[in-house]
Amino acid sequence: MADYEHLLVKQDGDTVRITMNRPERRNTLTEAHLRELLHAFETTAGSDATGIVLGAEGKAFSAGHDFGDVAARDLAGVRDLLQLCTKVMRTIESVPQVVIARVQAIATAAGCQLVASCDLAVAAESAAFALPGGKGGWFCHTPAVPVARSVGRKRLMEMALTGDPIDAATAAEWGLVNYAVPDAELDTRVDDLLARATRGSRFGKGVGKQTLYAQLDRPEADAYAIAVEVMAALSQSPGAREGMASFLEKRAPVWTD
Amino acid sequence: MADYEHLLVKQDGDTVRITMNRPERRNTLTEAHLRELLHAFETTAGSDATGIVLGAEGKAFSAGHDFGDVAARDLAGVRDLLQLCTKVMRTIESVPQVVIARVQAIATAAGCQLVASCDLAVAAESAAFALPGGKGGWFCHTPAVPVARSVGRKRLMEMALTGDPIDAATAAEWGLVNYAVPDAELDTRVDDLLARATRGSRFGKGVGKQTLYAQLDRPEADAYAIAVEVMAALSQSPGAREGMASFLEKRAPVWTD
Amino acid sequence: MADYEHLLVKQDGDTVRITMNRPERRNTLTEAHLRELLHAFETTAGSDATGIVLGAEGKAFSAGHDFGDVAARDLAGVRDLLQLCTKVMRTIESVPQVVIARVQAIATAAGCQLVASCDLAVAAESAAFALPGGKGGWFCHTPAVPVARSVGRKRLMEMALTGDPIDAATAAEWGLVNYAVPDAELDTRVDDLLARATRGSRFGKGVGKQTLYAQLDRPEADAYAIAVEVMAALSQSPGAREGMASFLEKRAPVWTD
Repeated sequence: MADYEHLLVKQDGDTVRITMNRPERRNTLTEAHLRELLHAFETTAGSDATGIVLGAEGKAFSAGHDFGDVAARDLAGVRDLLQLCTKVMRTIESVPQVVIARVQAIATAAGCQLVASCDLAVAAESAAFALPGGKGGWFCHTPAVPVARSVGRKRLMEMALTGDPIDAATAAEWGLVNYAVPDAELDTRVDDLLARATRGSRFGKGVGKQTLYAQLDRPEADAYAIAVEVMAALSQSPGAREGMASFLEKRAPVWTD
Repeated sequence: MADYEHLLVKQDGDTVRITMNRPERRNTLTEAHLRELLHAFETTAGSDATGIVLGAEGKAFSAGHDFGDVAARDLAGVRDLLQLCTKVMRTIESVPQVVIARVQAIATAAGCQLVASCDLAVAAESAAFALPGGKGGWFCHTPAVPVARSVGRKRLMEMALTGDPIDAATAAEWGLVNYAVPDAELDTRVDDLLARATRGSRFGKGVGKQTLYAQLDRPEADAYAIAVEVMAALSQSPGAREGMASFLEKRAPVWTD
Repeated sequence: MADYEHLLVKQDGDTVRITMNRPERRNTLTEAHLRELLHAFETTAGSDATGIVLGAEGKAFSAGHDFGDVAARDLAGVRDLLQLCTKVMRTIESVPQVVIARVQAIATAAGCQLVASCDLAVAAESAAFALPGGKGGWFCHTPAVPVARSVGRKRLMEMALTGDPIDAATAAEWGLVNYAVPDAELDTRVDDLLARATRGSRFGKGVGKQTLYAQLDRPEADAYAIAVEVMAALSQSPGAREGMASFLEKRAPVWTD
């Protein structure tokens, strides 16, 4: 593993655990922090890991952008920072591994965006979520992109316009996270969901995840055009062939891809 | 009615009941089965029926593709099968009749896709739903298309990545089906919802349903461009004119279209 | 304030209250009524108000189009009316003010569309919502556009195809409104939510709201392309700079834009 200043990254069997470790700065997404996240996800993408847990240390999951890192920048400088931040979010969606957010505390602004960008998310009951730009001067435009694609429109508007936090139970009810669980059960529930989500052919699941993001938010005919071509091509992969053969032969599958 | 090998099809007043009847094969969607479904829906589309109930006999609603029908095919052969399957799903959306799924048992993979593709769905409490490719070798790319358009993103990801089933109550809460009802009330509740959904002008409802699917998943301006043109044109139809006239004259409408 | 025949419009601090006031006609959206709504929203858009409450007097919030105003029109005439109606709905989305619906009673057809088009909505428990074209002759094509973007697909289909009303609690559960509240608390809850939604930089919030609608319903890459450019540009606005400076200097912000 590379040396990181802001992150703890460790391999744990087939899982890579990426933990934001600047609790004294509420894990704000400075340019340096974002570059480390990007490096960690891109490095893991090429590894043989099947799952990634994105977690955090301290009293915040992440407070989003660090105003100290933004305030001195001109438009071009902020644009570069937001492009980098967007690249991190979209890399989470594009890596072949299943990415699950382990949300132990409040996630705000681009921190909330991180949770919305992970494939799956489990939150401790004491966690909370907010788009606080709604009560300040700099609106949460980019965090609202994946949040809008997770919760309904009226709920998005409430979060984005008020800036007020919602608790973990509400986040689960609205679909921003999969589950709100007792704080003491957070690791167990994260690991259980990740284990269930990383079974089967690694290759097939990676392409499957990537195709899901490709077909979302498109008219259905366009989505089917993508899904049919990929699914037909993947039917010839070793994993698909083994899956079907083992089912027909009533034996346990052996995944080689 | 045509003779079918895999289906029971019967006219029941204004309703056509299409029942998948290969319980010993868990109503898998072989090419032959899909061709019969396509024929049944296309034939009914041109009839004067107002509603279609899609049901099934046995311990599964449908288990999706039959691996015995897929495993021997090359890429082109699988592609043909998936194109046929997609055509069945999209035909369900395009027929002018209201199509309601009567889900008496587990619906998996393309069987789950069938439920998601029907306009409405009522499930017995004992039914369940899964995208099992998530734990195998061949990911459920195409089933995820209409499921993604029914449930939120995090819930889609959980179903698609884990492959685990959700029960009927969860499916109703997530919006994959309209209602989960006691098993003994399944027929009553299906027929009640269908009766309420097939009132009014048949012509107006058929075009209305088709326009709904045309405007979904598009930016709002595009959706309005479609909806305004169709709604203006339809205002001149006999049904719309009778609807308005009967309302203004305080009498019961008589639908002639 | 201009003189209105169908509306009561009054400024109340930073809030403009637009109240549909044709209770004897169930606040139907005649051409004259729509023109007044459009005028009221467009006039308020250019004012220094931060919020708009759209309410109604009487036993209906709004019953949608007035068949007496539609029945005599030819296709071109209905098209003009629907274009005007669509312009009202989209103006509600495009004004920089936060618009909240105060729903005291039943909202049907284009009246339900009005609620779905407001940024936020609070409904009295005794209110209800319907797309009644589903049981008549003229299908609710255009009302279904924003309703489809608020509730899930199966729920849209149930509302649009059956035409039956849903109660306020169901509307809140499905995401058509933010909250269903005791009738006696309606004003308090509307004002509380609006106050929370109108804090911060007025300029930043106005552009923020407009950008939300611009990025919705688009593939995520397109949404990010919009959100990044606007958020970068807005980082240089007085409000954003004051928001960041006051945070870094640990003082209360003073908004000047």
